Amino acid sequence: MFATPAHPLAHISHKNAHRLTSPPHRLNRWAMSAHSEIAAAPSPDQRFGLRRTVRLPGPLKLDGGGLLAPVDIAYETYGALNADGSNAILICHALTGDQFVASDHPVTGKPGWWTRAVGPGKPIDPDRHFVICTNVIGSCLGSSGPASIDPATNLPYAMRFPVITIADMVRAQALLLDHLGVDKLAAVLGGSMGGMQALSWPTIFPDRVRAAIVIASTARHSAQNIAFHEVGRQAIMADPRWRGGDYYADGEAPTAGLAVARMAAHITYLSEAGLTEKFGRRLQGREAKTFGFDADFQIESYLRHQGISFVERFDANSYLYITRATDYFDLAEDHGGSLAHAFARTRARFCLISFDTDWLYPTRESRNIVHALHAAGREATFVELSSPFGHDAFLLDAPEMNRVIDGFLRAGE
Amino acid sequence: MFATPAHPLAHISHKNAHRLTSPPHRLNRWAMSAHSEIAAAPSPDQRFGLRRTVRLPGPLKLDGGGLLAPVDIAYETYGALNADGSNAILICHALTGDQFVASDHPVTGKPGWWTRAVGPGKPIDPDRHFVICTNVIGSCLGSSGPASIDPATNLPYAMRFPVITIADMVRAQALLLDHLGVDKLAAVLGGSMGGMQALSWPTIFPDRVRAAIVIASTARHSAQNIAFHEVGRQAIMADPRWRGGDYYADGEAPTAGLAVARMAAHITYLSEAGLTEKFGRRLQGREAKTFGFDADFQIESYLRHQGISFVERFDANSYLYITRATDYFDLAEDHGGSLAHAFARTRARFCLISFDTDWLYPTRESRNIVHALHAAGREATFVELSSPFGHDAFLLDAPEMNRVIDGFLRAGE
Repeated sequence: MFATPAHPLAHISHKNAHRLTSPPHRLNRWAMSAHSEIAAAPSPDQRFGLRRTVRLPGPLKLDGGGLLAPVDIAYETYGALNADGSNAILICHALTGDQFVASDHPVTGKPGWWTRAVGPGKPIDPDRHFVICTNVIGSCLGSSGPASIDPATNLPYAMRFPVITIADMVRAQALLLDHLGVDKLAAVLGGSMGGMQALSWPTIFPDRVRAAIVIASTARHSAQNIAFHEVGRQAIMADPRWRGGDYYADGEAPTAGLAVARMAAHITYLSEAGLTEKFGRRLQGREAKTFGFDADFQIESYLRHQGISFVERFDANSYLYITRATDYFDLAEDHGGSLAHAFARTRARFCLISFDTDWLYPTRESRNIVHALHAAGREATFVELSSPFGHDAFLLDAPEMNRVIDGFLRAGE
Repeated sequence: MFATPAHPLAHISHKNAHRLTSPPHRLNRWAMSAHSEIAAAPSPDQRFGLRRTVRLPGPLKLDGGGLLAPVDIAYETYGALNADGSNAILICHALTGDQFVASDHPVTGKPGWWTRAVGPGKPIDPDRHFVICTNVIGSCLGSSGPASIDPATNLPYAMRFPVITIADMVRAQALLLDHLGVDKLAAVLGGSMGGMQALSWPTIFPDRVRAAIVIASTARHSAQNIAFHEVGRQAIMADPRWRGGDYYADGEAPTAGLAVARMAAHITYLSEAGLTEKFGRRLQGREAKTFGFDADFQIESYLRHQGISFVERFDANSYLYITRATDYFDLAEDHGGSLAHAFARTRARFCLISFDTDWLYPTRESRNIVHALHAAGREATFVELSSPFGHDAFLLDAPEMNRVIDGFLRAGE
């Protein structure tokens, strides 16, 4: 009657783990896509197109004091650079996002994560723009990260990978722009952690970017933001399979800990009202409560699914590194404690977009940025949009956001 | 330089595990206090005083359909029942709280959790009131719970303990009142999960309670509330030491999973503004970021401490059961979907208190209750208090709350 429940996260299927082609290093599934070249459209110049990876010599000097070399960057490009090189747009992805902004994900098979904003007739249009999206360093979709091979040992870096920052991610993107022959961006844009990169770009490379669109983001991680990330990191590190990060050799990754981390984070991406509207207290495929520990409620089932499906596509160590990068993010701190000072040398036009139900990076964070931009005498547009979907709103159907992005981009063309 | 961090939750000290006296069943540390009778003040009637535990025959008929027998109740009493039995006050504790409302905790040695509200000269005053506080069933401080011995097997129940509800907790408290000779409560009160019990009392026993004070609470768990609890449950169940709940035999409890669960929950007890004020982005005992995974930030160190210290005093299986009880709580659902209908038979005066920065059980939840009480024609007072401390405000220095409680209690005396 009171049966002991089996733990639903204990034995996670890895059925999708081998979809990528020809792993060059069979012990390291997360490094696979770094070397796979599937479904690449024919192109006269192999630098451009889908499923691209480039190994740049570096070394990339990191905020933490170390050097990263070589620097692998996995990326997608859509459209073509025009004759005067004035139509390049860099899209920056969020925490666990990837470069597949408008192309199918090689692991999940799902369409790109921002096809609502990127595509023919969309605000970011490959017919007009040369669109670039890179996997950030520290991640696990092909760019250098903890799962990459450390040339010093010929083994995965694991936790020997250097801790990186948002600025390091931006500098790695700049290395790729050099490789692609893009001197100056018409615009850089992104949501969430992508917004942190977009906001940082003009502060690091004032002469290389004409406009920045920062969506559902912040200029610094708050104590609450750090707290949620710390819960996720502790969940991963508490998983005995984590083993100090050295789990690549036997393929026994800390999936249960990573799934718990994702579940905790996922709550912060959704609004309380949105959760109530979507799930409320509705039961999952049953007429009555079971008086047990199965997923009685739809919200439980949904969260478990979010956790389980996440571990199919993401590396636990990368989750540690990228959450650390966002926790370290404080643009003012890097400029003597003054956010206005951070923008003093920038020349870009800025557009800030927030969502009223986003409690991860609430509107007041965007407003802080706008105040600092104005204090620094910069040009800044700011819109708070209404949405029931919380932080995730920028990834969902948001026609108003599209109109704002479109108008802002066209005003600079 | 990039040293692999040791996991801080992996090896938690159990130095406090043996402070209680004479464990009757050496394999089960959580059942200890059920049988210990330490520091009890001399009393003419052994039913009254500190560190009391009573074994009631039951059976207690549970909402889930099962029967619980025997029913152990651990409790504290302060003050004396007056001649006409009109001065009894029942205090209900929160999720991981206990009966030690105004006496030292036997494991941690800390003072009672609500000495700010209970004591000589305080709103709940043993000189005027006969004060009772019981450990809820399902918990681990002496009342029947998963760590208790199942008489059918002479082994701990573990996950064979029946799933219980808030109403079951209330009915167990009523059994204790029978034992104590208390026919009718002058008042029942509690915060958070204690508020759920206080709110339920008049609906289950309309003739046994004259007033109910419901603080920082709700009439039903929202999808977001359930989501946070589900993260905690999954963290525990993902810990390989959990072993389906059967971890009592060797003392190797799933402490790492429980600590992560506590960390996630703890964030919801504090306001974003409070966290920013208390911790902000201040570093912990260092001048600069380490570019590693130590607790660089004070908020990280604080959260880790919360997780680690929690496992010293709480049982992981109890955490599963009590979170389940709160997730199942929906007073309207139990009354045909109408909260007003739930209050139709009640005769008590109600006092609702919320805190403006509480985002776990926000003010609107208290307001919903008041609307339903008014719709049912009941007498209800409602105050929203201002505090920077979020949900935890009711446990902290809150002189305004004390004044409201005092005034409401005196108005009924």
